[in-house]
Amino acid sequence: MLFMKDHVAKQARRAKEASRQLACLSVETRNAALLAMADALEANQEEILEVNAKEVEAAKEKGTRLNMIDRLILNPKRIAGMAEGIRQIVKLDDPIGKLDFEVVRPNGLKIRRVRVPFGVIGIIYEARPNVTADAIALCIKSGNACFLRGGSEAVRTNKKLVEVMREAAVEKGIPENAIEFLSIIDRDAVVVMCRLRKLIDVIIPRGGAGLISRVVEHSTVPVIETGTGVCHTFVDKTADFDMAIKICDNAKTQRPSVCNAMETLLIHKDIAEEFLPKIATVLREKNVELRGDEACRKILPDMKEAVEDDWSTEYSALILSVKIVADVDEAIAHINKYSSEHSDAIITNDKENAAKFEQQIDSAAVYVNTSTRFTDGFEFGFGAEIGISTQKLHARGPMGLEALTTMKYLIDGDGQIRQ
Amino acid sequence: MLFMKDHVAKQARRAKEASRQLACLSVETRNAALLAMADALEANQEEILEVNAKEVEAAKEKGTRLNMIDRLILNPKRIAGMAEGIRQIVKLDDPIGKLDFEVVRPNGLKIRRVRVPFGVIGIIYEARPNVTADAIALCIKSGNACFLRGGSEAVRTNKKLVEVMREAAVEKGIPENAIEFLSIIDRDAVVVMCRLRKLIDVIIPRGGAGLISRVVEHSTVPVIETGTGVCHTFVDKTADFDMAIKICDNAKTQRPSVCNAMETLLIHKDIAEEFLPKIATVLREKNVELRGDEACRKILPDMKEAVEDDWSTEYSALILSVKIVADVDEAIAHINKYSSEHSDAIITNDKENAAKFEQQIDSAAVYVNTSTRFTDGFEFGFGAEIGISTQKLHARGPMGLEALTTMKYLIDGDGQIRQ
Repeated sequence: MLFMKDHVAKQARRAKEASRQLACLSVETRNAALLAMADALEANQEEILEVNAKEVEAAKEKGTRLNMIDRLILNPKRIAGMAEGIRQIVKLDDPIGKLDFEVVRPNGLKIRRVRVPFGVIGIIYEARPNVTADAIALCIKSGNACFLRGGSEAVRTNKKLVEVMREAAVEKGIPENAIEFLSIIDRDAVVVMCRLRKLIDVIIPRGGAGLISRVVEHSTVPVIETGTGVCHTFVDKTADFDMAIKICDNAKTQRPSVCNAMETLLIHKDIAEEFLPKIATVLREKNVELRGDEACRKILPDMKEAVEDDWSTEYSALILSVKIVADVDEAIAHINKYSSEHSDAIITNDKENAAKFEQQIDSAAVYVNTSTRFTDGFEFGFGAEIGISTQKLHARGPMGLEALTTMKYLIDGDGQIRQ
Repeated sequence: MLFMKDHVAKQARRAKEASRQLACLSVETRNAALLAMADALEANQEEILEVNAKEVEAAKEKGTRLNMIDRLILNPKRIAGMAEGIRQIVKLDDPIGKLDFEVVRPNGLKIRRVRVPFGVIGIIYEARPNVTADAIALCIKSGNACFLRGGSEAVRTNKKLVEVMREAAVEKGIPENAIEFLSIIDRDAVVVMCRLRKLIDVIIPRGGAGLISRVVEHSTVPVIETGTGVCHTFVDKTADFDMAIKICDNAKTQRPSVCNAMETLLIHKDIAEEFLPKIATVLREKNVELRGDEACRKILPDMKEAVEDDWSTEYSALILSVKIVADVDEAIAHINKYSSEHSDAIITNDKENAAKFEQQIDSAAVYVNTSTRFTDGFEFGFGAEIGISTQKLHARGPMGLEALTTMKYLIDGDGQIRQ
């Protein structure tokens, strides 16, 4: 444990030192490095696929779950996707150096506030190796050193990706230790990493609820929590039925495994008798399992019963809990009680109810007459996404490059002293 | 312990519920409540002073340190100061509802990002009862419920202040539980409070290094760290000596107990022989104890020796560590190694060195030719200050009202679904 601590701290310290140099590099240098990294991934495709194939083989032998293996597998298309993702990041505006506040005080002091890199960003993630490429590119673009810790199943593939990208970056003037990868498989390494205050400036966990709560529980480094989505759609009594059905169908079935998919449908009591059978038919055709409260089951007796736990469950699957509510106030109260504060929607033609819903729902993204599936950096036009923050500190909702920066105050004087 | 947990969680839950209502109140209502609270403090002055006098008496009997007792004492002037502080906060712009990003996407979705209250802000602080009034006013102004935990020495005074202010606020329409005060003296209550994720949205510790590290260590609620200042001033070889002496004197002696006072002076080697005796004379006249490195002690042999610990110590007293450095690069390296990333200054007439210092020093406030003592919400023109953040997440440097808000995305559509 002691050896491990020293080892992890040493890597973080190296990254910290590199981050000082990195923060002074021009955006041209950072972009050139990104382009070189994208090219290098494609140029070294064969070697990468070879390492990956061996790792996939080993995972199969170990009896790893099939969906885990699917996430681990690389192929030419996935590598091209990583390279293309990096080239997209090159095109984005530089978030560094932007002046966002400026004032001259009565005593003549000139105060400016500018966006600067954090320093070292720790990213702790699970199986998918594309996160490695993505995280490196977003950090380097925003002038940050990164300290990565991927899933143990992908450690060899990730290590190879890091090697290839680092070599390309160094040739373009990026300090070598600006990209550090923690290859110790021991789960305790995550805890050690989370406690390196002052060496790592922020930690972003990307993965399942277990990983995220582990990081939050142990971290003394500030964390940006990304994560779980228990998303709701409330169909108000004035809703256009066709629109409501199209939106609910999209929110539940278009990609049920992601965090912005709908998990609970709330229906206004005055329309429930007519609306519930309609939406149930559409969703059941797509194999969605419906779990209803008592009122629902009076209308559709063949619905499974929803129990208390259902209201706070992120199914990430073709399951939907359904509840009938008296009005927008009950809908709001239910959502604020059970929502993970990610994305919630109202379908209504009542402007007052829409406004009330927008004001009172305490979530990162609040929707009127559209699908919760839009909570996404690309859909919001940010051009990149490091994750979706479900906390309120620093960043909330889809995080673009700006979320990877902090600020500092620069104060210029000519001898002023405090009275 | 279990009883305490339930008790603290119950208070937090009440505050959370109240925060939903509070978030919907107009700024007129919030301001009216603030004015009523200021009036109430003055109207109930006698009662407050009576409770305070008894508490001071008890503290004296217990043998509490004199400087602690001094911080605890209220008098008519201090109460007037609290009331005046609240009235100043009334005059500030409402931070809530500000639109800070807006876009219409190609698919017609209208996306807005607005500033909203956090919900419940936990504030954990030490002796001074004026923090109670200040914290309540800043939270209510920014639409947040507050959950306060003051020092045990001041618990009766704080409780009385909360009672008086809450009663006045409720009369103006603020929900009663929007102001919760934790009166359990047990230190473990702080730990319990720090772990109420989802009930408390953010915790701000205000106090000494011990309190802050205790909160950071145990909290699973996101923390905004305020705190320690190991601030530096580097006198470059091109510095104007008169200006440098005036600034160093101010930074060290004007109020040595505060976090933005200078703790370490760095001097360029080419001017050290001339500058060090001059500044030493000025500071020693004001009873500043100087602790120097070897090079300093060659010039002034009667200086005390600075040991390794000195470079990272916040003296908060009339003590100054002094080091001679080869150039601006060594000064930057020293500061980035030992600084608490609070406030650091360069005194120079070399524009390149000034720019380099501003770019490379990784601190909340970086000064050129002026005193570090200016790191302060009022001096920056924010009109109020909840503390000075020394972390990089969410807020850095002096925090005004905006630091007490988060944002949410409001997305309006007319039936859009994700493709």
